[in-house]
Amino acid sequence: MDSPVRSAVTAEDVARLAGVSQSAVSRAFTPGASVSARMRQRVHDAAVRLGYQPNAHARSLTTGRSRIVGLVLSSLDNLLYPAVTERLALRLQQDGYHLLMFVSEQRDSDDLVRQILQYRVDGIVLGATTLSSGLARSCAQARIPVVLFNRVMASSGVVSSVRSDNVGGAAEIARFLVAGGHRRIAYIAGREDSSTNLERERGFAEGLAAFGQQMQARAVGNYDAATAREAALALFGRARGRPDAVFVAGDLMALSVMDTLRHELGLRVPEDVSVVGFDGVPQAAWPSYQLTTFEQPVEPMVDAAVRLLQGSLAGDAPTAVDDVIVPGRLIQRASARAPLTEGRTP
Amino acid sequence: MDSPVRSAVTAEDVARLAGVSQSAVSRAFTPGASVSARMRQRVHDAAVRLGYQPNAHARSLTTGRSRIVGLVLSSLDNLLYPAVTERLALRLQQDGYHLLMFVSEQRDSDDLVRQILQYRVDGIVLGATTLSSGLARSCAQARIPVVLFNRVMASSGVVSSVRSDNVGGAAEIARFLVAGGHRRIAYIAGREDSSTNLERERGFAEGLAAFGQQMQARAVGNYDAATAREAALALFGRARGRPDAVFVAGDLMALSVMDTLRHELGLRVPEDVSVVGFDGVPQAAWPSYQLTTFEQPVEPMVDAAVRLLQGSLAGDAPTAVDDVIVPGRLIQRASARAPLTEGRTP
Repeated sequence: MDSPVRSAVTAEDVARLAGVSQSAVSRAFTPGASVSARMRQRVHDAAVRLGYQPNAHARSLTTGRSRIVGLVLSSLDNLLYPAVTERLALRLQQDGYHLLMFVSEQRDSDDLVRQILQYRVDGIVLGATTLSSGLARSCAQARIPVVLFNRVMASSGVVSSVRSDNVGGAAEIARFLVAGGHRRIAYIAGREDSSTNLERERGFAEGLAAFGQQMQARAVGNYDAATAREAALALFGRARGRPDAVFVAGDLMALSVMDTLRHELGLRVPEDVSVVGFDGVPQAAWPSYQLTTFEQPVEPMVDAAVRLLQGSLAGDAPTAVDDVIVPGRLIQRASARAPLTEGRTP
Repeated sequence: MDSPVRSAVTAEDVARLAGVSQSAVSRAFTPGASVSARMRQRVHDAAVRLGYQPNAHARSLTTGRSRIVGLVLSSLDNLLYPAVTERLALRLQQDGYHLLMFVSEQRDSDDLVRQILQYRVDGIVLGATTLSSGLARSCAQARIPVVLFNRVMASSGVVSSVRSDNVGGAAEIARFLVAGGHRRIAYIAGREDSSTNLERERGFAEGLAAFGQQMQARAVGNYDAATAREAALALFGRARGRPDAVFVAGDLMALSVMDTLRHELGLRVPEDVSVVGFDGVPQAAWPSYQLTTFEQPVEPMVDAAVRLLQGSLAGDAPTAVDDVIVPGRLIQRASARAPLTEGRTP
């Protein structure tokens, strides 16, 4: 491994053995390049016989493209992120790009982004942390497109972002719970400094206000199962004035709240308490939970992020900033009482 | 993005502004290199002022090291893999390495591994697919360490591997179920061509045989929730001769089997049927399941994989092949009847 020379075989050698041009060898190893399947096979056979491997780093220095996209996540504990990572990796692979993973343990990602820039990435997807507007501007100047995923910066117009309709989704949940006849409606918040929680809480409060209601109680679950359990115990531990419904700002927390209500407090869901989540994670559909939730549509969100990156990759113009909101939908399952008008005969 | 020149600022410029040597600039940007915090800050401040970014690809061509490790997974649907990916990314980041993600849609990873080699990775972790022994030998010749994660090759001695004690764990589950007084014990298999299933099935059969028992029934769940549901319906759909216990070869399947038994067949777990899984995924501990399962210890397994890679990275000797089996443990929760002798007063 310490030897810098892993293979002295060059593209020229491969071209000679395969009886093709050097440009054909280069194209045969470039994903998406124009070359017939037969030509590609011929070049690959010659390459295997000679032990030749094209060097993506050398190519990167020539073309200015590394074909690497950096992805920053804080924790795959978020049950939505495995699907996001997988979909993003597959989408990029189709175009010959690959994901370089960065797991952030801190809130501020400036240091991490500086590390990423060393790899001369062609783009960065930030799914975890916020970025200082200073560093965001540096990326823009260096023409490295950055997309915030499932979050948005306080100062808009600096970095592109993709998120689901947090405000609209939460307002729809408010309407749904009011229509279900609930009159003591609580809210369990995610991390209070996150844009997702700020938007969901605002949409929920506005949605309730439109029907002359307001949150009867509120606790913070921090997007974390253990904290959400504490929040549920605090809100539902006493029978007097107990809420009859709760909107929980993330599915991982909502599943924990359902477990706490049923297994620790002996309450029935939805007979005693209706529970609605936000995310649409696979586990929400499991028969033990059947969680009613607002789905963040992973595939369209990932596709939008890739389109934003590619738009910047293709053009010579400076990176354009865009803020994409992908519509989601309320999935009605069994954890919340349905609107009273449904299924009634007139 | 099409401009190959992103920054004309060199390390020399930074060294001049910071008033330090060029070697100090290089060390300040090399993770783990010997440099004081004050010096690092001084260099970084100068770099930010000038808009300088060191180029990992150029460094790779000089040092022969890309500081990239390729990770191949087939699907993050496997509930254990998010934790594996996160732990691996964090462990490598500490040493200044990063993970390049490859998601495999096919069984044979030779093509994918060829793509990975173009990035001149310093190592490859294969958590999804098998590798042909031919390509494994090519990697060894090119001195690129490969570690199979949670699987093993049929022809041993070619590629290093890390896995948990599938045979021993399954044998322990057999002992546990027999000791629990179960007499009609079934097995739900994972993918039948996988080394994990072959080992777990063998260990389970041997464990039962040691007590004069054998599997009373068997079905295939393919490591997939929907197929596991079908398997549970087939095995437990009729009351006559119904098994009183089932070992399910993976937790995702076991959770699906529990849901099917309870919500579709109206059976109680563990009063009517004991269910034991294998993996130790976070969801197995959720109050709705409380699944008894054999834990594959993610952190020691990842650490072992990193040690294998690093051993090969550090030494000048050709990549040594090692086969590490990490011990796990049976976590007793509520989904299976405990051994009859436990809790008895003499």
